[in-house]
Amino acid sequence: MIKILDIHEKDFETQFNILLERANIDMDIIIPQVLQTLQDIKQRGEAALLDIVKKYDDWNPKTFDDLKITEEDTLSAYKNLDPKTKDALQIAYDRIYTFHAKNAPKGFIYHDEYANMLGQNIMPVERAGIYIPGGKAFYPSSLLMNAIPAKVAGVREIIMASPTPHNHINELVLAAMYLCGIKEGYKIGGIGAIGMFAYGFGDTKWSKDSLFSDTQTTSKGFKKVDVITGPGNIYVATAKKLVFGEVNIDMIAGPSEIGIIADSHANSDHLAIDMLSQAEHDAMASAILITDDRKLAYEVAQKIDVKLTNLARKAIAQKSIQERGAIIIVENLKQTISLMNAIAPEHLEIVTKEPFLLLGEIKTAGAVFLGHYTPEAIGDYLAGPNHTLPTGGSARFFSPLGVEHFCTRSSLISFSKQGIAKLATPCATLAEMEGLEAHKLSVLSRLNSTKK
Amino acid sequence: MIKILDIHEKDFETQFNILLERANIDMDIIIPQVLQTLQDIKQRGEAALLDIVKKYDDWNPKTFDDLKITEEDTLSAYKNLDPKTKDALQIAYDRIYTFHAKNAPKGFIYHDEYANMLGQNIMPVERAGIYIPGGKAFYPSSLLMNAIPAKVAGVREIIMASPTPHNHINELVLAAMYLCGIKEGYKIGGIGAIGMFAYGFGDTKWSKDSLFSDTQTTSKGFKKVDVITGPGNIYVATAKKLVFGEVNIDMIAGPSEIGIIADSHANSDHLAIDMLSQAEHDAMASAILITDDRKLAYEVAQKIDVKLTNLARKAIAQKSIQERGAIIIVENLKQTISLMNAIAPEHLEIVTKEPFLLLGEIKTAGAVFLGHYTPEAIGDYLAGPNHTLPTGGSARFFSPLGVEHFCTRSSLISFSKQGIAKLATPCATLAEMEGLEAHKLSVLSRLNSTKK
Repeated sequence: MIKILDIHEKDFETQFNILLERANIDMDIIIPQVLQTLQDIKQRGEAALLDIVKKYDDWNPKTFDDLKITEEDTLSAYKNLDPKTKDALQIAYDRIYTFHAKNAPKGFIYHDEYANMLGQNIMPVERAGIYIPGGKAFYPSSLLMNAIPAKVAGVREIIMASPTPHNHINELVLAAMYLCGIKEGYKIGGIGAIGMFAYGFGDTKWSKDSLFSDTQTTSKGFKKVDVITGPGNIYVATAKKLVFGEVNIDMIAGPSEIGIIADSHANSDHLAIDMLSQAEHDAMASAILITDDRKLAYEVAQKIDVKLTNLARKAIAQKSIQERGAIIIVENLKQTISLMNAIAPEHLEIVTKEPFLLLGEIKTAGAVFLGHYTPEAIGDYLAGPNHTLPTGGSARFFSPLGVEHFCTRSSLISFSKQGIAKLATPCATLAEMEGLEAHKLSVLSRLNSTKK
Repeated sequence: MIKILDIHEKDFETQFNILLERANIDMDIIIPQVLQTLQDIKQRGEAALLDIVKKYDDWNPKTFDDLKITEEDTLSAYKNLDPKTKDALQIAYDRIYTFHAKNAPKGFIYHDEYANMLGQNIMPVERAGIYIPGGKAFYPSSLLMNAIPAKVAGVREIIMASPTPHNHINELVLAAMYLCGIKEGYKIGGIGAIGMFAYGFGDTKWSKDSLFSDTQTTSKGFKKVDVITGPGNIYVATAKKLVFGEVNIDMIAGPSEIGIIADSHANSDHLAIDMLSQAEHDAMASAILITDDRKLAYEVAQKIDVKLTNLARKAIAQKSIQERGAIIIVENLKQTISLMNAIAPEHLEIVTKEPFLLLGEIKTAGAVFLGHYTPEAIGDYLAGPNHTLPTGGSARFFSPLGVEHFCTRSSLISFSKQGIAKLATPCATLAEMEGLEAHKLSVLSRLNSTKK
């Protein structure tokens, strides 16, 4: 049975603080180990990557080329899809694309009162590395969710990496690659994939040849990417953190979670199965319902037990519900919001009489699902918004994966003769204040000189 | 004399690859040491912070309260400003604010063909920690550049920290705090400040009291922030990297740098002093001019030497120019661009006959300064765009500090009865494909049920 907590219970504060901690693991402990593997990749390149695949995926690639996924493989996987799945993937693709096109950051330009031009330019990064977990589970939906914002951004080179135990890659992931137009993929996972993305290997120095071609070609090896996105276990997350700065990354994410705010208008069957849909992801996942309706609370608890019985992933879901699940009974909706803001959940369902009236009170959540007809699972696949969301309370400062993760902004400044005449003096004052004389001389140099 | 490289020289590739490496330091080496200090702060809180101040800033605070900057101090510093400086700061404030107001990310909402609502909400983070270097140099401009985007975002709690050797804080930084309306500041720097921001200390657990007040008050201690921004040395940068995930950070930045593309239309006096204005920041800073005009190249080299002679920060600027500066002579503007794109500089000046014609060829740069009347230094203070920019080639994937660093996005989804009826089935197909049965049952549960 799921834990039921009453806000009036004596030890509620303690219990709730335990829920707030969630399954967040202290990464510090594994940093030295992950750092060592990353350094090995930096130093030995290809040889280190092959060793990692041998050790963790239990097959024997001879060269880096053996890790490559071929375009023929992705095409044939796509062709082999049954029509129902193909249609469903296409619907998902189109809806995700539409949402992210609206999410794309925009440039601007304006002129101030002295005819100085100021602006911001948006450009795609050149190379993006997308990490897709594999092994026990396989998530073609993650491939769509990571690839589509990169495509919307205009990234020219999108590269996929995924662990492939026994050199056996999932057909659905291959088909999703084809659908997304991803032509480059590698069968490598974990720290290996992150290190490969972050450092590259082989002949990656600048060469004069690049003066005569558009892209810096690397005849042998792998050129480092600019950004790494995608979910992963604690080793992947720690490796991403450690290469941050060498490349950009999307976020550091942990186990999935849902918070539900519900009142007496909610359907207990919906809530029970929605909580289980979160719980079946991972024994470390958490599902927390907060309601002002005691009757609903007990109904949902009971229905979770019933629905658990026949679930294919019963063992995982049961462990998650028992160890990390909770139903919290409060006095009123104001309290549901206060507690939920303390949680800052990855997914938030609001299933009340008037969900939109509560939205303004929500301080933070990765994604908010409003009303009776919006199960969180619809957001995992095809609602449109990204399913890569900040977990463990990090919705306070991280945002859903978006087009901006695959773009850079660049500031533009072009001063007029009149503009510098007006602003050089106050600028020189500030430079002098900071003791930077050449800065001062630099701005003043424009005052009494012609263009040349 | 500054190094002059000709693209036709035999060892040009080698020389240029050395320039590309810049002064980027391998952080991995100091990670264990920084991690240890951070863990000490996590465990011992206040006591660890006080020890750090004693050790590095050479004074003796008794309690955390002794580190606090008072509002009276900031007010009196502001009142004591001479009118010229006050005006200059106000001009900078207003222009930076105007630019960042345009830079703010925007929410959106739309309905699809089934009347499903989809959207994106933008919210400020609650607490932002701004790190301002101190000690040898003091940069009130950095305070403006970090505080203003946070204010535009609507951040309620902006907290400043800065090292203060001998408990002596710079008056101009205090005045800038007042101008920006920052009411909370602490005299602590380096890893100490980053650890304080990232972990907080004291009684920061959730308490029932928060149900009855808007903000979770911490009677004693310091509540962790959501985002840390601001420049710093290698220890600050490494600490920021290691706390990434506990909080968000702006970027990992290194020494400052400028790249200049110029043709025969450029004024060699301008270019020489602009390169020196970069070089005077830091001996590790780099200034690189690329031109197709050999005469200009030698003129600039000579003028740098002349202008260096009388410069207040001659020693620093000279070291930077000699060790990290370069003038590169190429055959044509196409080559200037190709080389500059390989550099991906923090600051890029384009001083050619028609600078805007080249802009479309620039793949990436933190900020671009176009034309004869746009010295880079104007961007350091009051052009409007942020002066916190990606360095060391990281402009390929990082962006200037912006309002988005102080905001989170949240996705909104509200499906209609008609919408879920249309989309539950393809969604169930995808859930089944991934073996997630409860996801499937969750979306299908909405089909044959009433609201309750």
